[in-house]
Amino acid sequence: MNIIDIINKTKKSQELSDDEVFWLVKSYTDGEIPDYQMSAWLMAVCINGLTENETFALTAAMRDSGDIVRLGIPFTADKHSTGGVGDKTSLIIGPVVAACGVCVAKMSGRGLGHTGGTIDKLESIDGYRTDLPLDEFEDILRQTGFSIISQTGELCPADKKMYALRNATGTVDSIPLICASIMSKKLAMNADCLVLDVKYGSGAFMKTREDAEKLAQLMEKVGRSAGKKCKAIVTDMNSPLGRNIGNSLEVKEAVELLQGKSKGTLYDVCMELAAYMLELSGKGNFDECRALAEEAVASGKALDVLRETIRLQGGNEKICDDVSLLPQPLLKYEIRATKDMKILGFDCEELGMSSLLLGAGRLTKDDKIDMSAGIVMNCDIGDQLSADDVIMTLYSTVCSDFSDVAVRALNAVRFKITEKPSYT
Amino acid sequence: MNIIDIINKTKKSQELSDDEVFWLVKSYTDGEIPDYQMSAWLMAVCINGLTENETFALTAAMRDSGDIVRLGIPFTADKHSTGGVGDKTSLIIGPVVAACGVCVAKMSGRGLGHTGGTIDKLESIDGYRTDLPLDEFEDILRQTGFSIISQTGELCPADKKMYALRNATGTVDSIPLICASIMSKKLAMNADCLVLDVKYGSGAFMKTREDAEKLAQLMEKVGRSAGKKCKAIVTDMNSPLGRNIGNSLEVKEAVELLQGKSKGTLYDVCMELAAYMLELSGKGNFDECRALAEEAVASGKALDVLRETIRLQGGNEKICDDVSLLPQPLLKYEIRATKDMKILGFDCEELGMSSLLLGAGRLTKDDKIDMSAGIVMNCDIGDQLSADDVIMTLYSTVCSDFSDVAVRALNAVRFKITEKPSYT
Repeated sequence: MNIIDIINKTKKSQELSDDEVFWLVKSYTDGEIPDYQMSAWLMAVCINGLTENETFALTAAMRDSGDIVRLGIPFTADKHSTGGVGDKTSLIIGPVVAACGVCVAKMSGRGLGHTGGTIDKLESIDGYRTDLPLDEFEDILRQTGFSIISQTGELCPADKKMYALRNATGTVDSIPLICASIMSKKLAMNADCLVLDVKYGSGAFMKTREDAEKLAQLMEKVGRSAGKKCKAIVTDMNSPLGRNIGNSLEVKEAVELLQGKSKGTLYDVCMELAAYMLELSGKGNFDECRALAEEAVASGKALDVLRETIRLQGGNEKICDDVSLLPQPLLKYEIRATKDMKILGFDCEELGMSSLLLGAGRLTKDDKIDMSAGIVMNCDIGDQLSADDVIMTLYSTVCSDFSDVAVRALNAVRFKITEKPSYT
Repeated sequence: MNIIDIINKTKKSQELSDDEVFWLVKSYTDGEIPDYQMSAWLMAVCINGLTENETFALTAAMRDSGDIVRLGIPFTADKHSTGGVGDKTSLIIGPVVAACGVCVAKMSGRGLGHTGGTIDKLESIDGYRTDLPLDEFEDILRQTGFSIISQTGELCPADKKMYALRNATGTVDSIPLICASIMSKKLAMNADCLVLDVKYGSGAFMKTREDAEKLAQLMEKVGRSAGKKCKAIVTDMNSPLGRNIGNSLEVKEAVELLQGKSKGTLYDVCMELAAYMLELSGKGNFDECRALAEEAVASGKALDVLRETIRLQGGNEKICDDVSLLPQPLLKYEIRATKDMKILGFDCEELGMSSLLLGAGRLTKDDKIDMSAGIVMNCDIGDQLSADDVIMTLYSTVCSDFSDVAVRALNAVRFKITEKPSYT
């Protein structure tokens, strides 16, 4: 086999064999194929696509490039979202599903760019350790049915190397490449059932519902071809998910939801995802599973799971009963309407970037983050605001100049000035 | 400007501005853009193509990346062929056009792969120097009107770097990239008029007449956009051009043609190209110019030019009157028909590779060549051969095992066994 033949085949939209795909991924990971050849192949994939079989092979080859997690737990469920702004669903769904008797074993990552990372959010809880060894992870799973730790071992080095190259060569926006990147990591984490939440809209990789559906279908097929129970759904990311963006702010919102204090879109998305996880795990049909999930919140059992997991991971579990024990920001800045206005929409990516600039996120891998920083959205799409109503509130301890960020955040809101309030 | 935006534009088939193309070529040549980004862009070009304006800008940027030749000669003509097997036209057309009063100043290259290089062919003449400085080159041009030397100065370093990368990344077969590569070098050589001979067929870059015509039209437009008189024609390379392949063998065939000893396809192609060069140089209409060219051969004036140029470049000019003074091979191997057969076609690339393996060419840049090695074709497409007729003759001094090469060369001939001779 040789790389030029492989590049030429993909350039001419001819299908590669499984052997060719495996050889390509292994040779690139081992450093035998240089970046300049791989980037030419990646560009050919971006423009010409890959067949389903090629995507299965690529995902499997990337999965097999490193360690594969093997837990001594008979059945585990996992959930993955393709990254959104304000997405704290893992903190809610994990405890809910565990409270219904299905073990949720999750390895998660840190945030980079405009989307946050679940590990960062959890680390805003005083004392919470995310770098547990696998045996401690398993102990906690046996006791509470739920744990989230940071990625351990060397999972998918092929993906790490290819992702860095794609970022540097304009070859990120390809549905088969995005699919293989996400699914290789999830398959290496090796849960028995997997629910995928594919976001579309201004805060997501996929800007349109149509593309998100293509990605969702492909991910489902890839998961099933690898022998997993797998369900992918498509959800809207044209508004932040929930009201809070930023690490401790999102933990607060998750806890309040598990306390039964809030319904709304975030609640609905979480219940739907949890229901699919329970259905795939054999707990009944979708409606029965959704009822189980709602009951886990209403009864307080899900919050009990979260409380116990936080305690076992070394965190201050009292935040589950008193969210004021989470990190508090030094500064607060309210952006208010100066006239009557109707809220038409948001640019979620820009809201995520504004939150990052307040200190909640990272521009580069080594940036430190301010756990208390972030944004609370005080309005939603369709809301009619009067002059002096709060549009959103910015929080930070480290950001010295709120006004620049405020301008950016306000530019992320589309609105219409209304002479008189309009309720249509 | 940044490279990711440029890659993304070409990926999405959006036109780049002249400034973007110049910035790209300069930054890559200067080493500011790494190979892995350039190869992604090149692949996007291979698949999506470039507009004419982008191709003009790319060619000009590559031309301007290095030296531009400036001769103290008022008007010079140049001719370029896109590389064929057995193509010795430069050795014939140059003297013919010079004999008609138009200065032919040519810088040429060495052969690599299955096509030969004019410089190698000339160096098979004992003593002939191709590495002349520009002032000696001009002196010879003033005296005889014709000289060919090897490329001098640093012409088109951008092309050199891009060509090496294209070779290693499966991005060679793109009409705009091939056009920019050839035309940037020709424009840096800076002749006033330029005739281009674009080959198609089994021995050429362009496998089909259609692709060759596209390339020819684009090259003409690029040449004219750069202010040159320019004409591109398309010629067949499904048979070797003439009968001889290999360095001294081709010089021999060229000399014999200028001696008036042969007509046929090679003669016709040479007269046509010479006529276009003379027409572009203002020597009359095409038919008048063709008559001038034929007269230059018939009168022996073209051979006089070649003889004098060889002498001035240090070579043994006596080969013009006695071709047996050219290097002679030690060994000879005739491939004969074993049955009556009709010749249907050739794979010229394979014939070129067979000649290379006999010692006439280079697989890598540093290989030495055997000046006397090569192939003489003893038949042409459509010929009816009887058993024991010679199909072709292999020559070499260095090749120890003729039989392997003979099998390869014979496989490059398509034929039909005929019970009885057929003259249809």
